[in-house]
Amino acid sequence: MYIEWIKNSVMMQRGVGADRDPVTHHLTEEIQKKFHYTIGPYSDPVMTIKPGDRVIVDTRDAFEGAIKSETDKPSELLTLPYLNPQNGPIMIEGAEKGDVVAVYIEKMVPRGDDPHGICCLIPQFGALTGTEYTATLNDSLPEMVKRVRLDGEHIYWSKRHTLPYRPHIGTLSVSPEIDSINALTPDNHGGNMDVPDIGPGSITYLPVRSPGARLFIGDAHACQGDGEVCGTAVEYASTTTIKVDLIKNWKIDWPRMENAHAIMGIGSARPLEDAGRIAYRELIRWMVSDFGFDQWDAYMLLSQCGKVRLGNFVDPKYTMGAMISKDYLQE
Amino acid sequence: MYIEWIKNSVMMQRGVGADRDPVTHHLTEEIQKKFHYTIGPYSDPVMTIKPGDRVIVDTRDAFEGAIKSETDKPSELLTLPYLNPQNGPIMIEGAEKGDVVAVYIEKMVPRGDDPHGICCLIPQFGALTGTEYTATLNDSLPEMVKRVRLDGEHIYWSKRHTLPYRPHIGTLSVSPEIDSINALTPDNHGGNMDVPDIGPGSITYLPVRSPGARLFIGDAHACQGDGEVCGTAVEYASTTTIKVDLIKNWKIDWPRMENAHAIMGIGSARPLEDAGRIAYRELIRWMVSDFGFDQWDAYMLLSQCGKVRLGNFVDPKYTMGAMISKDYLQE
Amino acid sequence: MYIEWIKNSVMMQRGVGADRDPVTHHLTEEIQKKFHYTIGPYSDPVMTIKPGDRVIVDTRDAFEGAIKSETDKPSELLTLPYLNPQNGPIMIEGAEKGDVVAVYIEKMVPRGDDPHGICCLIPQFGALTGTEYTATLNDSLPEMVKRVRLDGEHIYWSKRHTLPYRPHIGTLSVSPEIDSINALTPDNHGGNMDVPDIGPGSITYLPVRSPGARLFIGDAHACQGDGEVCGTAVEYASTTTIKVDLIKNWKIDWPRMENAHAIMGIGSARPLEDAGRIAYRELIRWMVSDFGFDQWDAYMLLSQCGKVRLGNFVDPKYTMGAMISKDYLQE
Amino acid sequence: MYIEWIKNSVMMQRGVGADRDPVTHHLTEEIQKKFHYTIGPYSDPVMTIKPGDRVIVDTRDAFEGAIKSETDKPSELLTLPYLNPQNGPIMIEGAEKGDVVAVYIEKMVPRGDDPHGICCLIPQFGALTGTEYTATLNDSLPEMVKRVRLDGEHIYWSKRHTLPYRPHIGTLSVSPEIDSINALTPDNHGGNMDVPDIGPGSITYLPVRSPGARLFIGDAHACQGDGEVCGTAVEYASTTTIKVDLIKNWKIDWPRMENAHAIMGIGSARPLEDAGRIAYRELIRWMVSDFGFDQWDAYMLLSQCGKVRLGNFVDPKYTMGAMISKDYLQE
Repeated sequence: MYIEWIKNSVMMQRGVGADRDPVTHHLTEEIQKKFHYTIGPYSDPVMTIKPGDRVIVDTRDAFEGAIKSETDKPSELLTLPYLNPQNGPIMIEGAEKGDVVAVYIEKMVPRGDDPHGICCLIPQFGALTGTEYTATLNDSLPEMVKRVRLDGEHIYWSKRHTLPYRPHIGTLSVSPEIDSINALTPDNHGGNMDVPDIGPGSITYLPVRSPGARLFIGDAHACQGDGEVCGTAVEYASTTTIKVDLIKNWKIDWPRMENAHAIMGIGSARPLEDAGRIAYRELIRWMVSDFGFDQWDAYMLLSQCGKVRLGNFVDPKYTMGAMISKDYLQE
Repeated sequence: MYIEWIKNSVMMQRGVGADRDPVTHHLTEEIQKKFHYTIGPYSDPVMTIKPGDRVIVDTRDAFEGAIKSETDKPSELLTLPYLNPQNGPIMIEGAEKGDVVAVYIEKMVPRGDDPHGICCLIPQFGALTGTEYTATLNDSLPEMVKRVRLDGEHIYWSKRHTLPYRPHIGTLSVSPEIDSINALTPDNHGGNMDVPDIGPGSITYLPVRSPGARLFIGDAHACQGDGEVCGTAVEYASTTTIKVDLIKNWKIDWPRMENAHAIMGIGSARPLEDAGRIAYRELIRWMVSDFGFDQWDAYMLLSQCGKVRLGNFVDPKYTMGAMISKDYLQE
Repeated sequence: MYIEWIKNSVMMQRGVGADRDPVTHHLTEEIQKKFHYTIGPYSDPVMTIKPGDRVIVDTRDAFEGAIKSETDKPSELLTLPYLNPQNGPIMIEGAEKGDVVAVYIEKMVPRGDDPHGICCLIPQFGALTGTEYTATLNDSLPEMVKRVRLDGEHIYWSKRHTLPYRPHIGTLSVSPEIDSINALTPDNHGGNMDVPDIGPGSITYLPVRSPGARLFIGDAHACQGDGEVCGTAVEYASTTTIKVDLIKNWKIDWPRMENAHAIMGIGSARPLEDAGRIAYRELIRWMVSDFGFDQWDAYMLLSQCGKVRLGNFVDPKYTMGAMISKDYLQE
Repeated sequence: MYIEWIKNSVMMQRGVGADRDPVTHHLTEEIQKKFHYTIGPYSDPVMTIKPGDRVIVDTRDAFEGAIKSETDKPSELLTLPYLNPQNGPIMIEGAEKGDVVAVYIEKMVPRGDDPHGICCLIPQFGALTGTEYTATLNDSLPEMVKRVRLDGEHIYWSKRHTLPYRPHIGTLSVSPEIDSINALTPDNHGGNMDVPDIGPGSITYLPVRSPGARLFIGDAHACQGDGEVCGTAVEYASTTTIKVDLIKNWKIDWPRMENAHAIMGIGSARPLEDAGRIAYRELIRWMVSDFGFDQWDAYMLLSQCGKVRLGNFVDPKYTMGAMISKDYLQE
């Protein structure tokens, strides 16, 4: 059933549940009841699954549906920190500190009768404006809302522009050990990474730091450019199908990603160069531990063939991924 | 009883409890029982006080006493994220989101029969080394521990050097609204700011974001240089006496500080310039709202007489304070 | 003779010399005589060309051939600031402040009887080490040299790895108005941008700031990963053929690039987010002035479809390019 | 004639001209003729002096007198990069790469019949606004000019505020080896550091990188706050008296400063934390080489008693100084 690369993925090679017949769960709005705005160990689980299981998740858009039309004012309708609602936490049986949770995204489809996405300019938010942290005395940029129709193929942006539907999950996390981190911030637990590669056909690996791992998911994007420069993607409500597995005793420090073509280390930090440093170091560590590389060879080789993805440079921490093509991993 | 400037401080002018006869509480180790490693709304209060009350707090050192001798290895004895133990949370009656808690530090004395402090070099921590965020492939610096005797006057650093006892509180916080942030990180809730001015004779103002404010305090330093460059100060166990008051309906975004000589805005962020931007903007806002300044006049005047304190540039976020002498605030 | 997109490029649409029959010049080592280590207005021109002319440039590798074998020590053979030798300055007739020089790279071939490239680890240089600026007390990483054979198709990296030949120019500049900037640093004059897209089939636009523009070129890379993480690419001696044109009265602030598929704004700064901000703002300005976009529409659209290239995050300033596909530029 | 500390300064202990009877030169406007806007090896010397000589320098204000009244518009009167005019270059006999030039500032007095200073808000310049590098889409802050009378005691800022006259030199440099760097940018050659401690009673040490050192001086400030937050100090025309000496074979990487009370390392970089890292590392190196410290002891001690001065965080590079009191240097 799985295509070739997945058979050889870390998830399928080392996942506790790789050989199980997966049970499929549906995390509906009714089951979720209360969405979460922080990722941490203090919230009540919505379900417990076994490694290898599949979950169909009904996600809300990042504004939780509050922005409905192009005349809406984000500053009047959005209330910090109650943004970017997350589904979960989903408990994974047997997950303990020192393990890794693998999340394979199988499918993402728009949800609801009137599938649409929202992109907006929020005051003091975005890469090309003063913000809460890059504090300036300038007036804010104008508020602005764009509401666009979409389907499983396209986003109907404007008369002039149609964008391809390139869905991905903006915020994917397991719980930190003791912190509870707002859903806007990425860090070594995952969080609001906004990496466009984390879509259907990708496996994300997240370091477990608390019992049961406590998986959170949300912030579906119908598409997003590198860096999410204005601060928002095409934010939409999705039905997202994931397969979740557990790898025991795999010590990783930061999220990693794998797809048909490449493996990726993911760093989140400010300034942006630190996100890049983390990403490349995590990638080197992976190449050394699993693919027979000497550390310095990996460092010099990546200087020739490493690829970088800027996730976002608008969130409280910025996210960068560093990749190497699987072509270079064969021995 | 209070010296002149305190009578005119925001705390005494606007504090709900300024005219009350304060009750003195003692937050002993027995009452505290469990120390906290995150600042958030999810922990059980250790006591409730009324605005204007005094609390004598028995703080532990940042390593919770785990480092005892100069042959100890920090990497073997310290376990992230269980560092920098905090007393609290202390609930302040009547405190609500939109208010401000004022913490006047009256006194800090060394605690215990054998008063001493610990300074150490921790691998991948400090300003002049690669770290978890500024990720490098370099070997770590050597681990090192310095254990020094101290009393209420001096720190006996070495045969060559005696340092003055200049105590202050490294970590002072109220709870974020929904996040729970590890005790190593400063942000707009206060946290691990490491500002040496936050010692006896200072009043720190913290923006309330949750019911009861939830005051946390810890990380006493017998002295500290600007920036805490090696990553640690003279960390010691203290008995710290604070007077806590509540100012209703004072909207501030970041911590502020006041002492006999100056007022200060405090920013915590990376990169460091953003901490400075936040600090100066917060100070300008204070000058405009309370001291009759035009925004641009304040901006230009601070360019001539503003003073900056680098708290730390070693924590997950860096802290900077921006000050103006009270001489310039008189009309 | 030119393929379709070039006919429609800014260079061919607005270049003063677009319709001229180009003269071909050859900038040999003999003509160049002295290579340059700074980009500025103080050096003697090596030749003067007319807009539209072609120049075949014999470039030296970034180490000027000093590193010859894998047992060489870069720290013994390289002397700062005499690194990254540049050909030029080439004067372009009629170029004045306020104009733009267009550099179309036609071809890059390895030079010499023994075509090879050098990659090395230089102490205190690279993204994953302390450096002169990110000053640490750690020991340096080991020095290391990799010398690899190459031809116009491949780079023979190791028994395990063959890399595709993806040549580009690391350092391309016109002179600043009064500064003379070392060849290791990129800025708004171009300089050491290390953007892999600036290879055959690309047109780079550089803002003229001094009479004659004073074009410098050097630092050929046989291939390079995003960010040039270890500090060096496959540095080689090339014969590079460029066609140079002049666009009068085109006010741009930072370098721009155009190829068959996309247009790009290029920013160079620290921290890295500032390079990204510059790049995206320059791109927005281009979209607004030449492609009929409203500023806010461009900002929001790029948040969905902008692509980012990390040039380097190892030089004294870091370089990032922000692109949009030409598909989105059609009206 | 000299006060005690100067006798023991590096300048007087090791300066080639310490025992000479100094000749006094006067660098008038007539002798200077042409002021310089870059610091480099390509300009014609205005005078040659012997180590130990005194020079009285007539400096122009940073706007070269172009801003005359409070109704002037900086954006109309100032032309980048022709800002911050510098006197010099002054050649120091015998100075060679690897030496150090010492500049003792003896006196700074206002110049002219109508002593005054100018402070202004310049579009896209300052710490609390988007800039050329921190590129935003926000509208610029309002332009604004403040012209203030001053004398050798006070600056008459406004009816409400009189500031003390605390003069210092904003821009002090020797030439880089091959670069020529605009007068707005600080770096390891000195440049536009804007460190308020570099005033009368201070000795600044600058690493010589070209024959004769080529000393430049300008940008007198009648006073300045930490960070120069709005982008400008009280900029004025001064008569500044300096004594210049030469220390042979003293290898320093970045500028250093000494006064009666402290020694300081000075770093200039972005992000700001890197300026701090450089400053502290340079200070540690000084403590180790000249004051008998072990490197790790120095690092840990500075964590307790180091003091930081933020020079500016508005220039193309930011400047920070790290100090230790001379009390701690005695053995």
